[in-house]
Amino acid sequence: MPSEGGEKPEVGQDQAPAASTKVDWIIKVLRLLAFLLTLDATLVMALNKQTKTFTVATIGTVPLRATLSAKFQHTPAFVFFVVANANAALHNLLMLAVGFAGSKLSFKGLAPLAVPVLDLVNVAIVSGGASAAVFMGQLGRNGNSHARWNKICDKFESFCDRGGAAMISSLVGVLLMIIICAISIIRLRNHYGYNKLALNSSVLP
Amino acid sequence: MPSEGGEKPEVGQDQAPAASTKVDWIIKVLRLLAFLLTLDATLVMALNKQTKTFTVATIGTVPLRATLSAKFQHTPAFVFFVVANANAALHNLLMLAVGFAGSKLSFKGLAPLAVPVLDLVNVAIVSGGASAAVFMGQLGRNGNSHARWNKICDKFESFCDRGGAAMISSLVGVLLMIIICAISIIRLRNHYGYNKLALNSSVLP
Repeated sequence: MPSEGGEKPEVGQDQAPAASTKVDWIIKVLRLLAFLLTLDATLVMALNKQTKTFTVATIGTVPLRATLSAKFQHTPAFVFFVVANANAALHNLLMLAVGFAGSKLSFKGLAPLAVPVLDLVNVAIVSGGASAAVFMGQLGRNGNSHARWNKICDKFESFCDRGGAAMISSLVGVLLMIIICAISIIRLRNHYGYNKLALNSSVLP
Repeated sequence: MPSEGGEKPEVGQDQAPAASTKVDWIIKVLRLLAFLLTLDATLVMALNKQTKTFTVATIGTVPLRATLSAKFQHTPAFVFFVVANANAALHNLLMLAVGFAGSKLSFKGLAPLAVPVLDLVNVAIVSGGASAAVFMGQLGRNGNSHARWNKICDKFESFCDRGGAAMISSLVGVLLMIIICAISIIRLRNHYGYNKLALNSSVLP
């Protein structure tokens, strides 16, 4: 951030500005990656559709065909996956914008508290969406003999493969968002409360 | 916390000790509730089993019966649910212990950073477990005509009801854990960095 140099001597740490600028850029790069991954997961899953024609019976020599489509809308877990990832992509984009405009804006009141808390909420939502989709995908791939649910990925291979790619993208995105949120928390403590905290154990919950 | 009174004047806020003690107790109560809810979710799901005898055919006048069991182990999403909730219950119990022993321990190095970061990771894991179980339960209740997966909750009502209770318990637990983590983040900023932060916008990611 260009607005950092020596104008905040009250922070009271020697190497704080240089280290902070570096961490700022690390967070921005991680956020950009998280944005791209969640956006990718959203688009790949939302555009995932496979239409296939099956021969269901043969009357004499005339085959009777049926055309079936696999769409993400047919599975509630995949709909939640798309909504959760779209929401996270939007959140990451907004936070990137806030980060770049940060030096020009003055944040007061509840605004600075909102960023890590929103990060946290988004981690929970995307983690839920990715996890639900993964287990539904596992069911599609392997089936469940106890519930007599047959696998369907042997019929819709490319639908399953594309869905799996979206899930991997989303899971890596969640991981990056957890890392971003953890860095934010650690940095807050390092910046302001590290030494006091070591003494003031009452901050621990 | 009994060790708080006036021995830490370096915190530098007038009403900090009184407010901090109150927030300490709020966090402890929320954590106890989160512990009980995740433990409840673990036990209810792990002990969930229903055995039922169905008449599958009748030969002459002799009914042919089959006994089927519904167990949580049959569904990978429910296994993950149990593991995630057990892990979160253990985490909350440990953090409660750390909180109560906090005044006697001196935390240095990475230890104080670990609490909110572990909270964050646990929120992500339990959210994933609860969400996967909810969508699998929805599939059991409604089925999915597109994939030709039939509902099974009409045959195993009490298995589904107990599973649903465990899921509600887990979801409320996740919500409480999100609130705990958010309070920790907000408190860190309030304690140490609030006023500085309003000026130092570079802390925003």
